[in-house]
Parts: sequence; structure tokens; C-alpha cells
Amino acid sequence: MSGPTARLAAINIGGTAARREGNGNGSPGFHPNSASTNSKTSTESNTDNAPRGDFGLIGLAVMGQNLILNAADHGANVIAFNRTVSKVDKFLANEAKGKSIEGAHSIEEFCAKLKKPRRMMLLVMAGKAVDDFIETLLPHCEEGDIIIDGGNSHFPDTNRRTKYLATKGIRFVGAGVSGGEEGARYGPSIMPGGNPEAWPYIKEIFQNISAKSDGEPCCDWVGDEGAGHYVKMVHNGIEYGDMQLICEAYDIMKRGLGMEDKEIGDVFTKWNKGVLDSFLIEITRDIMYFNDDDGTPLLEKILDSAGQKGTGKWTAINALDLGQPVTLIAESVLARCLSSLKGERTRASKVLEFVGRSSKFEGNKEQFLDDLEQALYASKIISYAQGFMLMQSAAKEYGWSLNKPSIALMWRGGCIIRSVFLKDITAAYRSNPDLENLLFDDFFNKAIHKAQPGWRDVVSKAALLGLPTPCFSTALSWFDGYRTKDLPANLLQAQRDYFGAHTFKIKPEHASAKYPDGDNIHVNWTGRGGNVSASTYQA
Amino acid sequence: MSGPTARLAAINIGGTAARREGNGNGSPGFHPNSASTNSKTSTESNTDNAPRGDFGLIGLAVMGQNLILNAADHGANVIAFNRTVSKVDKFLANEAKGKSIEGAHSIEEFCAKLKKPRRMMLLVMAGKAVDDFIETLLPHCEEGDIIIDGGNSHFPDTNRRTKYLATKGIRFVGAGVSGGEEGARYGPSIMPGGNPEAWPYIKEIFQNISAKSDGEPCCDWVGDEGAGHYVKMVHNGIEYGDMQLICEAYDIMKRGLGMEDKEIGDVFTKWNKGVLDSFLIEITRDIMYFNDDDGTPLLEKILDSAGQKGTGKWTAINALDLGQPVTLIAESVLARCLSSLKGERTRASKVLEFVGRSSKFEGNKEQFLDDLEQALYASKIISYAQGFMLMQSAAKEYGWSLNKPSIALMWRGGCIIRSVFLKDITAAYRSNPDLENLLFDDFFNKAIHKAQPGWRDVVSKAALLGLPTPCFSTALSWFDGYRTKDLPANLLQAQRDYFGAHTFKIKPEHASAKYPDGDNIHVNWTGRGGNVSASTYQA
Repeated sequence: MSGPTARLAAINIGGTAARREGNGNGSPGFHPNSASTNSKTSTESNTDNAPRGDFGLIGLAVMGQNLILNAADHGANVIAFNRTVSKVDKFLANEAKGKSIEGAHSIEEFCAKLKKPRRMMLLVMAGKAVDDFIETLLPHCEEGDIIIDGGNSHFPDTNRRTKYLATKGIRFVGAGVSGGEEGARYGPSIMPGGNPEAWPYIKEIFQNISAKSDGEPCCDWVGDEGAGHYVKMVHNGIEYGDMQLICEAYDIMKRGLGMEDKEIGDVFTKWNKGVLDSFLIEITRDIMYFNDDDGTPLLEKILDSAGQKGTGKWTAINALDLGQPVTLIAESVLARCLSSLKGERTRASKVLEFVGRSSKFEGNKEQFLDDLEQALYASKIISYAQGFMLMQSAAKEYGWSLNKPSIALMWRGGCIIRSVFLKDITAAYRSNPDLENLLFDDFFNKAIHKAQPGWRDVVSKAALLGLPTPCFSTALSWFDGYRTKDLPANLLQAQRDYFGAHTFKIKPEHASAKYPDGDNIHVNWTGRGGNVSASTYQA
Repeated sequence: MSGPTARLAAINIGGTAARREGNGNGSPGFHPNSASTNSKTSTESNTDNAPRGDFGLIGLAVMGQNLILNAADHGANVIAFNRTVSKVDKFLANEAKGKSIEGAHSIEEFCAKLKKPRRMMLLVMAGKAVDDFIETLLPHCEEGDIIIDGGNSHFPDTNRRTKYLATKGIRFVGAGVSGGEEGARYGPSIMPGGNPEAWPYIKEIFQNISAKSDGEPCCDWVGDEGAGHYVKMVHNGIEYGDMQLICEAYDIMKRGLGMEDKEIGDVFTKWNKGVLDSFLIEITRDIMYFNDDDGTPLLEKILDSAGQKGTGKWTAINALDLGQPVTLIAESVLARCLSSLKGERTRASKVLEFVGRSSKFEGNKEQFLDDLEQALYASKIISYAQGFMLMQSAAKEYGWSLNKPSIALMWRGGCIIRSVFLKDITAAYRSNPDLENLLFDDFFNKAIHKAQPGWRDVVSKAALLGLPTPCFSTALSWFDGYRTKDLPANLLQAQRDYFGAHTFKIKPEHASAKYPDGDNIHVNWTGRGGNVSASTYQA
């Protein structure tokens, strides 16, 4: 990631520099600070009353504040607004002091201070607040203005809003933003989609403030309507999975191997130099080393009850709706649900004991730690393979054209799941954009074969030792199912036909005159039931 | 289950016999065949034109036909209608011949032939067809008439329809019906909910035609609005899980132990005499023994590609919506999704090979088969425990009062998941209707402790041998998570606070002046980030 200061200097020399770097798909004017650095070509800057705001942002929680500071660092004049107006003044007097940031104390003032077409970003709670702010903005907007929703809105809402605002002449963008506090401040991953007419006007500022990976911005146009929020949703689902996988590894080291947090931190330090090199492993290392005032790890004092109800849940539901076997994200969401039942688990812990044929880890600890690294790596490969399957299926279902290498690149830097791993995924999709599945790529194919023995041993030992591994296990079961030509679902189809006359198809290699290939076949299994098949009723 | 013939005789003597048995909650008239057997008290039967239909059914697919035959066997005069009218004539000329069944060739005729209040059951495809038939029926209905939707409608639709029809003076019932062909014909499980005013009018006929378990009807009022369809939905989700568990056991025997279908059939025969005694094990045994004309098992010729998109999916989605960790049903639905990718799996099977430290089953086969029985039993206990957790949560969320012992009893007979096992669940909830979780019941607590060692070995060995066990595995992981007081979700909360300032809570036993119990705590993990917590933004 290039530093914000270097970038700021480059832009302050003149808008052209920024334009040259922005791999210019015809950016029609409205570059950040073009008014101030290039005043001779701007009529609007000739009077003192002319609006000076390149970019407006509503919602001054941590993400909003940091995105504003980031944009200001990159030379934009930013207008800040918040419903609770005292927050605006507090922000201006503190974090925003001395920067190209102005406050607004009303929506009228906010809109009046922005150059046209206005670029207005909402960073408010997903749901009703977004619709409310849109309605509040509308009377002060003009045709061609751009409203960007940078929150975690659900993609069907973004579909709806894009269509609705197009009827009012307003260009709507749903942009997924990931990177947390730090990312928002110094370069997030940004995934914009919606009305494509808006992209030329926001491309430069978005790509300027976004993270860079090997010099390329981690921001590109994703697709129509809710495509940006959709990809962000899948990103978050994958984030849920990555986090749960790390938790399982930590639990196995702590309870299975009896390791202290410091020692576990050392393992994460080592892993962060290998195939698992990523932001989440890095912060996990930091967390393992972070002691409370009493010198013991703060981590062990934190309540093990995790919230969900957000984008991870939506991803799992969408996978079910599209009929895609995205098992790892689903398990990670459900693991959070289970964690939240702290009271019930505590009661259960008193009446449900471990019973097994072995209760203590036996074997070579160093070997097992290597196996654990491979288990985490392999499970992660499966999770991303599932995530890309889902996006592929969504693109087909919703009629979007998704650029897979570009998605991998957007996730490569800035966001929570950023990793060296995503560089390999980018490479895989760049070398073959039509790749059917990540596991068919040479690099990942080799990786998953190499990881298998260790992965199997970890899942096997955890089951024997009584350690829960919902995500390691589901990843392995999925892999073993995916690579199986003949699954036992033939029995399931036989059962359904037996009890509900639901019919089955024959395997092509067993097709015959009696059972033709492709036919819906019903068999009278018992000699008792009828010969009516269930054409209009689903049991 | 008492035979239909005996039942028929009992009712034909007079409506009173049926009434006496129907544990009479004040059934206000309108007993099946009360008009014909009790004509002196009926004014309507004094003319030849008086309607004679006790019960009308629309939709002559296999379930509809069989329910009609069942009702006729129990003494009801049934009026049959189907959109494609030729089906009515065909049914009357064949299956319905000589029974108390009349056809209708139009909706007008259908309604005209029914005694009032009309009891009209729809057995049509869930969705638009139900709404369409309701609208078609409405002009011919009178206040107090009863429309029953016996299909697999989604419970929110049933909520909506109950409310809508109440405004028209029509009493709507959403009744889950399970049992497949055979069940519908000789005694299904029926789970009615909706407008409680309807129950007294349909109780007798429903309880007459339903299955009986130890003399008790497998049909009782479930609750308001969509509660009946909700319970049927969860039933179907559990059915998905049960079926997938059996498939995993079959796969392990076939590919892991190299057994032939006949030999596997012998194992299911044995299991059907023990704790797994159930309809699904019974039919699986039959399927294993069922040979095609060439003397080889038909099963092995059936395409291993299973449909989903129905009630199992809804159950998983609802579990996610309610934040309940119903992992086994979710995995079973996703396993069907994976099975349906037959083409992709076939291609994957050519490039993804098994790699492991052992590839062949080693150990005592008889012991392993016993372990497998225990794995299936334990996983099934977990699935039902999860299902009842879900219903408990739904009752709270939707304001329904669900009778848990009664639900277990309804599932005890007639339906696809009927089993000896459900007798034990009925007993558990009868002895303690407020049981927090099935695993807290003595019987199941002992059972799960006994099953653990074998269950662990099966999951462990399957992982080592490359056999997919999504449901055995998730059940074990869930159990090991559920019985754990301190899960690794503390790390997840630390990560969320690190990257997104999402705050965490402290474990009560570690609360201090600095970190008070119950407070939302944010720590500046890096020394770089701000101190603003993410109060209005969810990453």
C-alpha cells in the first residue's frame, strides 16, 4: 500500500497527475480539488460563494470519520454531516482540524456546499436510515447527482434504490467498503456497483482513497444495481469463515495441546510468514500477545459470545436460495449462533461430559502444528472456492457480469480478508477468467493435494479429543463430496420415490429401454402403493 | 396404527361413536356423515337436492387421491375436484369407484355439493396455485366456511392467508400433512394451525383419518396462523437430516467397508430392531434388497442428484433468521445442493485425488458397524434437539404457544420421520414440558454419553479415509461446542474489536473496575487506531 502522504503530494501538484494514474476510462471532470488547483478552467470557483466540496459524507461514526480523513489526505474538499449535529462540530474541532474538511449543520447546507454533480456518500446503519436519508436529500438534489451508499446494505435493497433513484434522475451507487477503522483511514477495499453512469464521476476519488496492491487500486466497478453490495456481502461471509477457522485453530492449540496464548502467538507469527500470511492472522498474533494490566492475556477475559445477524447470515441464506453448497460460511454463521447461547452452554457443560476412547493428544506436536497450518490453509481454499461458486451463480441468476480477477484483486488489499492468498486467486482468475472452480487451477490443485494428509489428521484428532471443528470438518466433507463422482444421494432419491412417488432419474451408464436416460422414473417399491407419480405435490 | 376397516365400521354405526372417541372438545355438529346417519335431526337431508358432502378436496395428485380414499374409508362423503377435470372422471371410474366419493366438474358444483359450513381442503402446489384457488372459491363461499391448505405452504404465506380470510369471514387452516403416498392413504400425520375457530369443525375428521400411535391420533391443533405449516416445515427439515444421515451410513458401509447392498440391507434390518427402529430405516432396508430385472440392486443405477428448494431450505433459512444453530438440517440441505452438481463433481473427480496417511479401513468391522449405529443415533438426537430448539425459538418470536409433547406425538406415527425414537421424545416432553433441551432429559443424556466413543471413531475414520460425512461431523462438532462453557468466540470478539471497533463484553468472572460486567468495551489494540467505537456501523 502506498502511503497517503505520497499520494496527497502527487495530487496537489495538479489534478492531471491523478488523472494520468487513474488508468483513465474517460473521467468527465469533477476530479477532487480540480476547482482549487485548476481554477482558471473552473467557472464555479470564481466567486466566494461557489460550492467547494468535491465529496460529501453523511454519518460520522468511526468508518465515516476515517473515510473523510482519508479523502482529505488525498486532496479532496470534503463536506461532513451527521444527524446529531454536535458530532460534526466535535469532529471539526478534533480529528478534522487543519484538513480540507468542512462541516454542514443541515442537509440544505450539506447539499449547497457540494459541487455538481454532487457526490454524496452515506455511511449510516443499513436499512431504514438509508431510505430516510435518501428522502431527506432528494428535495435538495438535481438531475445527475450521485448518492453513494457505503454501508452494509442488503443487495436487494440496493437493486430497489438504484431503480427508484434512476426514475428521479439521480445516479445511485451501492459501494461495499471493507477494512475496518484502519482501512477506512489509510486505504480500504471499495466495491462499487449500481448505476454505471456514476462510475466516471467517482472512479478517481474512490481509486485514490482505496488500498493499493502491487500498485493497483483495490477498487473497480463491480456491476449493475446491487452487485457491489453483493460482492461485499460474500466478502463478509468469507470473513466470517476465515475468523471461525482461526478460532478453531486457536482452540485446538489451547485446549488440545495445552498451549499458552504467548506460545500460540508465536505459531501465528510463524504462519504469518507462510501461505497464511494475511491481515487476520497478523491481528490474531497481536491479540495473543496483548496483555491486560495484570500481565495476563486480555483475550482470555473476553466473553465468548459473538453476534451475527448481518452480512454473513445473508450470504448463507442467499447460498441456500441459489442452491449453492456454501457450507463453510453457513457453519461459521451457525457457530456464532451457538456461541451466543452462553447461558445454555454453561448449563450444558455441567451435564454433558466428554466420553471417548482417547482423551489426550498423542503424537508429535511440531508435526501436528504443521498439520494444523495445512488444515487451516486447505479449509480456506475450500471456503474461497465456495464463495466464488456462489458469485458465479449469482451473476447468472441476476444477470450481472462479474469480473472475477478484479474481485480477487479488490479483496487483495485494504479489506479484512486481505492476504497473500488472494494474490494467488487473482493470478488464477487472470490466467483463466472462465475457470470453473478454484480447485481446477494448477496452483490450488497442488496446494489442496499437499494439504490433505495433515488436514485429515487434524479433523480426525479433534473429533477424538472432543474439540469442535465445525468449519475444518465441513470443508473436508465438502472436499471429499466434491471430488466424488458417485455420492450416496442415489439412496435419497430412492427414498423419496419410495415414500412420495417423487421419481428419480437413472445414471446415464445404466440407461435402458425400461429406464431411459433423462426420464422421471417411478417404481412401485412395495407392491402396495399406486402408480401415480407426484407431479403437482412436493413432500 | 389401527386399520382403516375397523375404523370405518365404527363410524358407520353412527356419528356418536366417532364423537365419543374424539376426546370431545365440544365438536359443534358437522361430523362426517352426520347428515346421512342422523337424518331426522337434519333439515338439509330432507330433500334430494340437499348437499351431502362432508368434506371437499381439490387437487387429485397422489396425496390428494389418497387422502380422499382415506376419508371415505372413515365414513365421510367426499367431493373431489381437480383443475384438469378429466382427472376427476378418471379417479371416479377407478380408485374411487364404489366409495362415498362424488366428483365435481366446476368450483360452483364443488361448493354446492358441500354441507355448511363447507370444509374444503386444497392439496395443490404451494405458492400461487393456493392463492388462485382461494380467489376462485371465495365467490361461492359463505361466512363460516373453512378452507384448509394441506400443501407444503411456507408459514408466512399461511400467516397472511389466515389474516386475509378472517376479514372475509372465512376460517383458514394451514395443515401440514406428512406420510407420503402410504401415509395419506392409511393414516398420515396432520399438523393443523390457523384460525382456531375452525378446529372444532375439522377435529373429528382429521383425527379419524390421521395415523394413531398407541391409540392416540397423530393430529392435534398446533397453534395460530402459520404454526401448523411451521411445524411441518421443521418436520421436513428433520426429514432431510434423517435421510442424509442414512445416506452417510450407507456410503461408509459401501465405500469404506466395501459391503454389497444386500449385506448393507442386513445391517439396516438389524438396526430397525434397535434404537433406530423407524420408517426411514425400514424403507432403506427394502431399497437395499430391491433388485432390478437383471438381479442387481436398482439403487446402484439411480442418479445421485437430489432436489431441494423446498421446506428443508426454508427451515435452514428460518434457523439463520432466528439465530438458532440448526447445523444438521443446514448441512443436509447443502449436501443435496452438492449432489445436484453431478457434472461438476464428475469433472472434479478426475483432477482431485484422495491423499492421506491411510486409505483402507483397519479395525474390527463388527465393532465399527456398532459404532456406526451409535453415530447415526447420536447425530439424530442432535438433529431433533436442534429442531426443538428452533421451534421453541419460533414460538417465542412469533407469539405462538406450541405444545411440544403433542408435536412429538404427531410425528410419532403416520409421517416420514415416524420412529420409536419419537416415543422417547414424547415421553421426555411429557415428563417435563419446559425441558430446556432434549439433551437435558435423562434418557437422551444417557444415550448421548453411551454413543459418544463410537460416534467419535466413525467421524474420525471417515475423515482419514476420505468419506464425506457432513451431517455426522456437524452433529459432533455441535455437541462438542454445545457442551463447552468457553468457546473460542472470545478471539472472534477480540478480532472484531481490533479491526472494526465493534466492542466486546468481559467474562463476568473477570469483570473489574476497568472492565465492568455487561459494558461494551473497546480497546485500542494497536496504539494507532482511534477510540471511537462503531456504534452506528456494522462491518
